[in-house]
Amino acid sequence: MPISAEAPLDVVRWEGDAIAFVDQRRLPLELIEARARSVDDVVEAIATLAVRGAPCIGVFGAYGVALARRLHAADAAFADGAARIRAARPTAVNLAWAVDRTLAAADQLAEARAIHAEQRAVDRAIGEHGAALLPECGSVLTHCNTGPLATAGEGTALGVIIAAHRAGKKLHVYVDETRPLLQGARLTTVELAAAGVPATLIADGAAALAMRTKDVKAVVVGADRIATNGDTANKIGTYAVAIAAAHHGIPFYVAAPRSTIDFSLDSGEGIVIEERGADEVRRFGAAQSAPLDVPAFNPAFDVTPGHLIAGIVTEYGVARPPYRESIPELAARPSFAALLALDTR
Amino acid sequence: MPISAEAPLDVVRWEGDAIAFVDQRRLPLELIEARARSVDDVVEAIATLAVRGAPCIGVFGAYGVALARRLHAADAAFADGAARIRAARPTAVNLAWAVDRTLAAADQLAEARAIHAEQRAVDRAIGEHGAALLPECGSVLTHCNTGPLATAGEGTALGVIIAAHRAGKKLHVYVDETRPLLQGARLTTVELAAAGVPATLIADGAAALAMRTKDVKAVVVGADRIATNGDTANKIGTYAVAIAAAHHGIPFYVAAPRSTIDFSLDSGEGIVIEERGADEVRRFGAAQSAPLDVPAFNPAFDVTPGHLIAGIVTEYGVARPPYRESIPELAARPSFAALLALDTR
Repeated sequence: MPISAEAPLDVVRWEGDAIAFVDQRRLPLELIEARARSVDDVVEAIATLAVRGAPCIGVFGAYGVALARRLHAADAAFADGAARIRAARPTAVNLAWAVDRTLAAADQLAEARAIHAEQRAVDRAIGEHGAALLPECGSVLTHCNTGPLATAGEGTALGVIIAAHRAGKKLHVYVDETRPLLQGARLTTVELAAAGVPATLIADGAAALAMRTKDVKAVVVGADRIATNGDTANKIGTYAVAIAAAHHGIPFYVAAPRSTIDFSLDSGEGIVIEERGADEVRRFGAAQSAPLDVPAFNPAFDVTPGHLIAGIVTEYGVARPPYRESIPELAARPSFAALLALDTR
Repeated sequence: MPISAEAPLDVVRWEGDAIAFVDQRRLPLELIEARARSVDDVVEAIATLAVRGAPCIGVFGAYGVALARRLHAADAAFADGAARIRAARPTAVNLAWAVDRTLAAADQLAEARAIHAEQRAVDRAIGEHGAALLPECGSVLTHCNTGPLATAGEGTALGVIIAAHRAGKKLHVYVDETRPLLQGARLTTVELAAAGVPATLIADGAAALAMRTKDVKAVVVGADRIATNGDTANKIGTYAVAIAAAHHGIPFYVAAPRSTIDFSLDSGEGIVIEERGADEVRRFGAAQSAPLDVPAFNPAFDVTPGHLIAGIVTEYGVARPPYRESIPELAARPSFAALLALDTR
């Protein structure tokens, strides 16, 4: 499976007696499809980040429960397998949710397929609503990883770009490498190649220059958590990109499912920024880039204030400022899964 | 020589029968002093970037000519050695200038010492003028490498910070790692540790968040070329830092010797940005971070417009906006070396 396959990236798929998945530990060196054939394989893939991205882990975990059901006729062994999958990454909310939902269903495989289909549908809807915001031609800039490898669908911000490309827009994507963990360099470049979207990798510090000189007409990023005033927590470096976009008069969009919105959160002030280990900054992959006794500040996220965001794209459409009005309105919408079920009746 | 020696970093020094120098190829892994005992050693150190930074290469080259004179009684062998040193890095203007000046002098060692002393004096003057701009306490942010390892003096932007620290100001420095070549991580952290200045390394994308949350009261950077309207070419990423500083109302200063100003240049529009190889972005050292067939945009520099710069610190003082008036005025000043000579009469 060469990296520039221009084939849809099937990050997770059911094969009957196994779950085929892209082993993300091997990226960007090789795009390798591995197979989980046992509960141990499923747990290991999640625990070692071979499968990552909260929605992607959820889909994979759901198939994992279906696999456990197929392997274990005895209910006790099945329940034990599901519990082990559920605990493979304790903080992954999507994983626990998907495992519980699949466990509770009568037909595990059908439920896992439904979860995957819903994820694809949400991504598709985000992509189509967002694609309308992008220009007919020109450059778009993105940060971090928000594509198929993160969601097992088409992605959020990257789903928007891929949908616009599919609709015939002539876009060129500038991809921030996204230090310290380099998700843009390692993952987003691979996703864009697979989708056939022309892309250029840049150091994070080059984004402002690219905006000034490379015909960047829009920025699209994902989100980890959104407050009701539009303040958005996302991968470290997003805030700097938003400031530079504002400086150049370039619209800055956030693309994320409604589930990312914390309707109980009044503003980004309430978001605690996780700090990660200093070695992520003092090293670059296996290479050491700084003295190991130098202190480092390594926030995993930053918060971009809502006033720098031109629109927030969800599966329900584009929320526009003032967010204090447009975001709470989203809380009242029926569940997207219910809408899908209506559609297919 | 441990990295956190808190001893002045003597990057280049004459030892009588050798030139002692910090081997910058070993940083940040070890702070090792090497010795050049022959013309071959001098040429190799320059060619392999063991000694780097234009002013630092100039000082080292001048001592190299003094070493050649000591080793070669015959004028032909001496001239050949000097010519080989001069050609060790063809594009290094300071190197050719320093070699020519040392060659033309009656006493090569005295001339090399004078060149080094002038470099130190220029750095000291920049440092003292700039130190007055920094707060009594709080954080300062810098980008790339502008300290002793770059100039063989105290440095430009880092010289300002070191001078303020020496004057008793309680500063904490946030150091951008400065992708793609990581000069901030590899070099600046070592310089600050040697100077005893508290410092924290950050990914470039974290600079804006640091400005918002870490009490950053000023930004100081160096320059590669300055136009007469204040537009400043400097390491890629500087422009993004300047935009973020403006967004947060933080003063952004440039520190550089007058020789950096191109008095023939009306604005930054005339500055051609060097683009370097894509592999610098796709790799760091031996570590690969992106597929090797992904295109990368790798500008070495960007241009920060003068209107984002609160002051330009040279050895003559601080030039303030409007730069169209304050910068041309600097052209008329007597040479700093001449001023030094007057001082020591």
